[in-house]
Amino acid sequence: MSFNQFDSHNSTLNSNTVSLLAPATVANVVCGFDVLGFALHEPNDEMHLRLTDEPGVRIVNEDDFGLPTEPARNVAGAALLAMLRTAPEVAGVEVRIRKHIRPGSGIGSSAASAAGAVVGLNHLLGNRFTQAELVEFAMYGEEVASGVRHADNIAPAIYGGVTLIRSTTPAPDVVPLDAPPLFVTVVHPQIEVKTSDARQILKQQVPLRDAVRQWGNVGALVAGLLKHDYALIGRALEDVIVEPVRSILIPGFEQVKSGSRAAGALGGGISGSGPSLFMLSQHEATAQAVAKVMRTTYEQLGLDYYVYQTTINTTGCRILPDVETRHFASRR
Amino acid sequence: MSFNQFDSHNSTLNSNTVSLLAPATVANVVCGFDVLGFALHEPNDEMHLRLTDEPGVRIVNEDDFGLPTEPARNVAGAALLAMLRTAPEVAGVEVRIRKHIRPGSGIGSSAASAAGAVVGLNHLLGNRFTQAELVEFAMYGEEVASGVRHADNIAPAIYGGVTLIRSTTPAPDVVPLDAPPLFVTVVHPQIEVKTSDARQILKQQVPLRDAVRQWGNVGALVAGLLKHDYALIGRALEDVIVEPVRSILIPGFEQVKSGSRAAGALGGGISGSGPSLFMLSQHEATAQAVAKVMRTTYEQLGLDYYVYQTTINTTGCRILPDVETRHFASRR
Repeated sequence: MSFNQFDSHNSTLNSNTVSLLAPATVANVVCGFDVLGFALHEPNDEMHLRLTDEPGVRIVNEDDFGLPTEPARNVAGAALLAMLRTAPEVAGVEVRIRKHIRPGSGIGSSAASAAGAVVGLNHLLGNRFTQAELVEFAMYGEEVASGVRHADNIAPAIYGGVTLIRSTTPAPDVVPLDAPPLFVTVVHPQIEVKTSDARQILKQQVPLRDAVRQWGNVGALVAGLLKHDYALIGRALEDVIVEPVRSILIPGFEQVKSGSRAAGALGGGISGSGPSLFMLSQHEATAQAVAKVMRTTYEQLGLDYYVYQTTINTTGCRILPDVETRHFASRR
Repeated sequence: MSFNQFDSHNSTLNSNTVSLLAPATVANVVCGFDVLGFALHEPNDEMHLRLTDEPGVRIVNEDDFGLPTEPARNVAGAALLAMLRTAPEVAGVEVRIRKHIRPGSGIGSSAASAAGAVVGLNHLLGNRFTQAELVEFAMYGEEVASGVRHADNIAPAIYGGVTLIRSTTPAPDVVPLDAPPLFVTVVHPQIEVKTSDARQILKQQVPLRDAVRQWGNVGALVAGLLKHDYALIGRALEDVIVEPVRSILIPGFEQVKSGSRAAGALGGGISGSGPSLFMLSQHEATAQAVAKVMRTTYEQLGLDYYVYQTTINTTGCRILPDVETRHFASRR
């Protein structure tokens, strides 16, 4: 089987290429360690996939983040290699990635690349795989990034919205949760917290009493989201297990959290394993006030930071219409 | 302030008396240890309350179960004493209890008495308390019974339906969950499992990995109930923390569980701290098949048992209309 070469001026007619946006995601969502996550409207990685005659996967990083290009060590590459094993009629895939989600930020940078890769290839394959299957492929990418086959960033990046991962074994069991409109404010302080380090400092045994409180909150957060009960969402955003340990790694955590609550935020905490922090608000004005709290905090601490003020992305990775594809391609 | 004496022939006109049914409840609901519970249509305790001029609480047990009559040591009494402290205009209350929910069965016998007592007194007080406040009063009764102020039987007995207790501190935070129709089959094998013993055998530390799996299931069970997704409910009925320990105390557990699943039940497990077991089914025919599995199991084991085939009671304690009150009173 042979595929045409990608032609940036003719992408509307070329079914061998696709461009897409892969969203940042917030995993854990305070009480939901390793099971809850949601997708953001901003930031997104831009990705471009092309079927090739050359066997295997080729990674082109259009950034200076120093990410690996060897497919088996690259999150997009590992996910695509897993997927290609089920599609023997495809020789190879080239992936170009322009990252806007900074690696190490804690808002699902690796998951975006893995999710975007499999959503893109699935599009080129005529959408033959279910979303659940795509999650499974993309988890091979997460494994490369963090050593753990977790899906709490992957699932929302693929499904969009808020997702619960009931279990990842034997297969990922993803439960989409229809949430009410929420404003999300994220701050990424420029410090490094490695996912693997953030995992190592967690206690491997937890008091049953704390675990019960945590699953009471997880159940309540799921109920608050599905019932569109903002007050309940706010009460359920409590983490007695992970946050007390990990928050120590993040300067400004307490100021951001207490200041945001005082400004009217429903609540929030560490995004993934940090260092980014997120806060949920019912109203846009509150989200703006939260952004101000975040800026003030890190200016006072003398740390560089990025703030994203956004909302929940309910569609996940977005295949770009051809006109946007041409635009993206021409910007290369 | 003075109250008329109760007159069984004139209860329609007498606002100082009330009769009600207090339902059995299933707590924990497999994965939701200490946070989930639901009310049953059968069995119910019958309770009759009367305001009296004599100060304090008087308990009349119309059974031979040997339950205490000293108010502070009786679950209904302790709950009423707590409630009376907020209603100084009431001198005393007499409570007559005819139990059909056997003490020690694991289907909320003590909770029914505590919940029924506070719902009844609230009715006589013109319904001045919220359901959440009633839960708080009734928890004083549960404390007498088990030493723990838990609310996972109390809340469904008062609210009806399926409830989640997000937290009990500082005040109980009860989340009603709008579940789809479910058939419930309960078997009560005639063995004794004390709630306090069943608590003591639990490990006070649990692996984080298991806790994560458990809260994934709790979140999924809440989502399955609210989304009326029977298959998801079935997948989420998994307990990796409490059931492996407590099921050892209950002969026939594995046979009932595997046989019920094979018969088409969604799933189930230990009711409360046992020894009763419950199974949920989407269809009545399945629930009947499950009842047969239960009977066969305990007949083969040579243990006496009761089987209840019922559905979820969505109203909780039910104040009896006056005609039923007269009937109940005349049966005394």
